[in-house]
Amino acid sequence: MLSHVVGAAKRPTVCFRRGLQTVTLIPGDGIGPEISVAVMKIFEAAKVPIQWEERNVTAIQGPGGRWMIPPDCKESMDRTLIGLKGPLKTPIAAGHPSMNLLLRKTFDLYANVRPCVSIEGYKTPYTDVDLVTIRENTEGEYSGIEHIIVDGVVQSIKLITEDASRRIAEYAFEYARNNQRNSVTAVHKANIMRMSDGLFLRKCREVAENFKDVKFTEMYLDTVCLNMVQDPTQFDVLVMPNLYGDILSDLCAGLIGGLGVTPSGNIGANGVAIFESVHGTAPDIAGLDMANPTALLLSAVMMLRHMGMHDYGKKIETACFDTIRDKKVLTGDLGGKSKCSEFTEEICRRV
Amino acid sequence: MLSHVVGAAKRPTVCFRRGLQTVTLIPGDGIGPEISVAVMKIFEAAKVPIQWEERNVTAIQGPGGRWMIPPDCKESMDRTLIGLKGPLKTPIAAGHPSMNLLLRKTFDLYANVRPCVSIEGYKTPYTDVDLVTIRENTEGEYSGIEHIIVDGVVQSIKLITEDASRRIAEYAFEYARNNQRNSVTAVHKANIMRMSDGLFLRKCREVAENFKDVKFTEMYLDTVCLNMVQDPTQFDVLVMPNLYGDILSDLCAGLIGGLGVTPSGNIGANGVAIFESVHGTAPDIAGLDMANPTALLLSAVMMLRHMGMHDYGKKIETACFDTIRDKKVLTGDLGGKSKCSEFTEEICRRV
Ligand SMILES: CC(C)[C@H](C(=O)O)[C@@H](O)C(=O)O
Ligand SMILES: CC(C)[C@H](C(=O)O)[C@@H](O)C(=O)O
Repeated sequence: MLSHVVGAAKRPTVCFRRGLQTVTLIPGDGIGPEISVAVMKIFEAAKVPIQWEERNVTAIQGPGGRWMIPPDCKESMDRTLIGLKGPLKTPIAAGHPSMNLLLRKTFDLYANVRPCVSIEGYKTPYTDVDLVTIRENTEGEYSGIEHIIVDGVVQSIKLITEDASRRIAEYAFEYARNNQRNSVTAVHKANIMRMSDGLFLRKCREVAENFKDVKFTEMYLDTVCLNMVQDPTQFDVLVMPNLYGDILSDLCAGLIGGLGVTPSGNIGANGVAIFESVHGTAPDIAGLDMANPTALLLSAVMMLRHMGMHDYGKKIETACFDTIRDKKVLTGDLGGKSKCSEFTEEICRRV
Repeated sequence: MLSHVVGAAKRPTVCFRRGLQTVTLIPGDGIGPEISVAVMKIFEAAKVPIQWEERNVTAIQGPGGRWMIPPDCKESMDRTLIGLKGPLKTPIAAGHPSMNLLLRKTFDLYANVRPCVSIEGYKTPYTDVDLVTIRENTEGEYSGIEHIIVDGVVQSIKLITEDASRRIAEYAFEYARNNQRNSVTAVHKANIMRMSDGLFLRKCREVAENFKDVKFTEMYLDTVCLNMVQDPTQFDVLVMPNLYGDILSDLCAGLIGGLGVTPSGNIGANGVAIFESVHGTAPDIAGLDMANPTALLLSAVMMLRHMGMHDYGKKIETACFDTIRDKKVLTGDLGGKSKCSEFTEEICRRV
């Protein structure tokens, strides 16, 4: 048994020490704070040389009614360049934007990267999944431009630009090259949206010309979905417009156990990035020490790799996967009976 | 062994007899003609009182360069109201429309219905799938309206109307009620496309009010995809805008064995409908007597039910499923070694 179980609400002291890199921590809503505590504890146990700067994100309205993130969060991110973020509740007020989207927009985090890798020992209908979805994160169906044409007729604008398409294609190919991955598949519906998806696809093809060491294929989104559920092991890196990435990344997460175990990173230019768990706030279990911190922890591991701290990343990832494979100390959603704090302690013990 | 194997190219004589209902048959390209022959043979063996009127569909350009389907096909469909269609090759010429889409548009086939039911004895990663996707088939992301705004910036218009949304919602609820199904789930991204998907969702909610006997739920498309691969048995009838239906119907087909075994119907007002297999033309095996006619046959069974010929539908469906469950005479894609004509004969023997 664990000799020392720490309550979910007890936080390690945040200290600002010299020589430590600072990361902006946005704990978020619902279970966000407790899974953030879990990650902080594990980082402390692993002696990761970073310090956290906690910030809240509730949308505020600036001049002219424009929604923005709180200035102290913006200021922190502008300085640290790196954020780790728990779930944020979806606002219900009309006109109130999704804070997740506002963060992506504010820092121009154009690449949403979601590795999807089967976890050994965690039983799902699929094994040996090992792919990465790379989603254009700034435009497409998420432009937010919509109009009423006449009563009862509405249009939403899907915006595809040459620049954003080239940028995400380059990101995907560079990602493939730097991560020893062999192929990039562009996912599209250019048979239907011939101009917009056509432009996206054309840029992918052009960029592919500069990456002859990486195999390039293109596939319709519907075909990808069909093939994905039949044999996900055929896929490697997938690159696609915004909405398709939203869909496909959730589908792929489903293959390996859901959003509770899948990390996500939003990457911008010049190193700026926010890593986040993409599950919900789970208000029903918030504060009950029942949440599973794995998705946020694996997102934090992605963050460490992004910051060049590969050894710390590996150490924590291994401790997390070993704990899951061992099956002795697991949270309820993973099939166990342990508390969030017990699961956390077990990982701490192993790092 | 089969005593009498009929070659794929030998067709039963099409005869126009009195008292028979006429159906327009569009054999299509690639393997289309041979799987059409298979269906005709099975219908003949089952003594289904219909006669076929064969028509080709190659796009032609009318006055002003407008693409249209050949007048003799249009005339036939206008008269028979019912079509059965094999796969059509996707045109490569720029500006040339998809003939599949042109058919849906020409006859205002607003509801695309794809039942997705696990086939007993045909092993797939999932069992007990029993759901139906109902896709708005005329607008949304398939409006075909696209523009270049400035160099390098393209927009595609997603068009959602109150009328089409209400119409498809009503279709879905009526379908649920008439087919002893308990629930309808509206699939949307109204958190992102608040006006367009918002309108679609609002109409679904309104229509749900008139169908208190059918349970109504709403779910984000990404969440549906994730839940679908984790447990498809939780879903029943799903209704959604055009593109989401394209994606989700393929995903669901993948769960039960792919497009080779899944039927599809495009339904319009006043009984007009075209039933089609939605797999490709498979040019590599065309003419080799290797194709699997199941998807077209099950589409033809949907057609029989649509025409009120439930007993004939049941008889043929049972013969087809029994043949598959038996595993003795199967085409290559189903895991067997038999020719298309042998598989067909086996079904004929059983009807
Ligand atoms: C929360 C929501 C706005 C978001 C999206 O649609 O992008 C989520 O589904 C995601 O995938 O990050
Ligand atoms: C052939 C193609 C135009 C079509 C579509 O995108 O709707 C197909 O994928 C389908 O699902 O019927």
